[in-house]
Amino acid sequence: METAEDVVLVVHGGAGRDILPGKHNTAHDAACRVGLAEALRAGYTVLHGGGSAVDAVEIAVRLLEENPNFNAGRGASLSHAGLVEMDASIMEGKTCGAGAVAGLTTVKSPIGLARAVMEKSPFVFMVAPGAEDFATKQGVERAENAWFVTPERLAQHQRLLAQGGGYTVTAAVPDTVQDQKLGTVGAVARDTQGNLAAATSTGGMAGKRFGRVGDSPIIAAGTWAENDTCAVSCTGHGEFFLRCAVAHDVSARIAYGSKSVTEASAGALAKVTALGGDGGFIALDRQGTATLPFNTPGMYRGYITTDGTIHVAIYRDEAFGLSGELVY
Amino acid sequence: METAEDVVLVVHGGAGRDILPGKHNTAHDAACRVGLAEALRAGYTVLHGGGSAVDAVEIAVRLLEENPNFNAGRGASLSHAGLVEMDASIMEGKTCGAGAVAGLTTVKSPIGLARAVMEKSPFVFMVAPGAEDFATKQGVERAENAWFVTPERLAQHQRLLAQGGGYTVTAAVPDTVQDQKLGTVGAVARDTQGNLAAATSTGGMAGKRFGRVGDSPIIAAGTWAENDTCAVSCTGHGEFFLRCAVAHDVSARIAYGSKSVTEASAGALAKVTALGGDGGFIALDRQGTATLPFNTPGMYRGYITTDGTIHVAIYRDEAFGLSGELVY
Repeated sequence: METAEDVVLVVHGGAGRDILPGKHNTAHDAACRVGLAEALRAGYTVLHGGGSAVDAVEIAVRLLEENPNFNAGRGASLSHAGLVEMDASIMEGKTCGAGAVAGLTTVKSPIGLARAVMEKSPFVFMVAPGAEDFATKQGVERAENAWFVTPERLAQHQRLLAQGGGYTVTAAVPDTVQDQKLGTVGAVARDTQGNLAAATSTGGMAGKRFGRVGDSPIIAAGTWAENDTCAVSCTGHGEFFLRCAVAHDVSARIAYGSKSVTEASAGALAKVTALGGDGGFIALDRQGTATLPFNTPGMYRGYITTDGTIHVAIYRDEAFGLSGELVY
Repeated sequence: METAEDVVLVVHGGAGRDILPGKHNTAHDAACRVGLAEALRAGYTVLHGGGSAVDAVEIAVRLLEENPNFNAGRGASLSHAGLVEMDASIMEGKTCGAGAVAGLTTVKSPIGLARAVMEKSPFVFMVAPGAEDFATKQGVERAENAWFVTPERLAQHQRLLAQGGGYTVTAAVPDTVQDQKLGTVGAVARDTQGNLAAATSTGGMAGKRFGRVGDSPIIAAGTWAENDTCAVSCTGHGEFFLRCAVAHDVSARIAYGSKSVTEASAGALAKVTALGGDGGFIALDRQGTATLPFNTPGMYRGYITTDGTIHVAIYRDEAFGLSGELVY
């Protein structure tokens, strides 16, 4: 588990069993590294200019949604029905204000709509189709569902159907699905006012059925931010993260157990591991200590420090290698 | 805040600002007391016969769903569109297994479907319309939406529309809605094996729009059960319970702060109150200590002890008055 100091923004682009060195081609890896660095740079620009942590996590996640290499927004996984069905949530640490959306099929930036729910409605959580009506009222940018579908995801979907069609009603999660990249994206930030924020966005599991929603749009499971403790965004096998309330669990271990963010995160991930769940998360406290734990072979991840230095990595035991200078 | 010992099952039928002595007619109050007692008796029968805590909370909540006096199942509040849209969740403390459903319009027992999600699918949370497809696969009992609508709820809906139509996109929650009974139902139990379970079911807020989902189907917010700590079921203004992750917060204060269930519950409710939220919850630990805190004038509530004595109350500072003997 990496821990870093003096961090202002952390991002992730998913954790999964199949994120192994050599499994993906190097061009894909390089594109993902660049995508993470771009998200960090965009959020950093907001923070460096005195902008809010909420603005920073929103722009970082929005860029990762727009990047077809990650499982959120365009490039999201396809459901059993062959549709992109997206979930997202956002939370600000100062007020514990929160917004969340699930099951979106036409909203270009799910994280943007989650923020509108937080700031422009009396509600916290909206699910489709009602959430799409809210998107219409808000005038947010839309697209046909086919716009979100990339050739890679379509091929993945066709392989899944050929292998038995993904989830059945009663079967345990098939290996063909478990081995897909669990590529949720997320960001946590602290601003110059000392406020924290967290955001998470996903296309969910490939082949999901029955309106399945994972942890990503669930405040306390996939996302949490509270100035007194930390900001957290999770990725992984969502059912286990729901059953462990992982994001809030990290916060609670700090609040009530007097743990550091690093200790709290190790404890929260150990609980997921004990239940048999795969994944990881990013956490950041108000003092700028960040930790990026995961129990899978890899997690797309990166952080940027106060001085603007970018660190990006994919695999376990990989030194954070890519500096901002190498990207720009 | 009432605390009781040697408790095996606790139920609630909602907390709200308008639960004031004299506001409802005595026949309504009496019917609610009987309904709570019947739910307690049914769950007790399961537990007394060596049945599981999960079976006990399911049957107790199912009876409250069937009772038209409570805001769950038949008798649920109507959405802005005039539909009953129901949410529920269930969790077992031994495994931290969980199931949840949202936005149901045709499932007679939402808590029954939540349990099917927990036990018969690889998922934890399903939202409609996919959740209704799962209900079809499971063959659970269904009804037309109109079956759920009672004359009282229809009249409430018509008053709400006459007063401005409930929620707008940006307005704060109007008083006409806030003053509706926040009548979620729930149960927490411990069985002879020492296992805990929790269940919550609701029709949500009257006049809700945009696919709004509250805390009731959210594991960690409205429902939590973990053998090492406690079982919790919440009721109230759901947005605040989501932002505080109330059910998991009670558990975490016990786990990491070494608090009793009573102390932990007081702390968790104080956080809701500080944010301006109304409501309450029921909590039960493995030793049989139950607590039933709320910050509203009343909460429909009751518990039953190992010897089968039933205690039921509605208003604040009301002595738990109705014994099992008076009901049967």
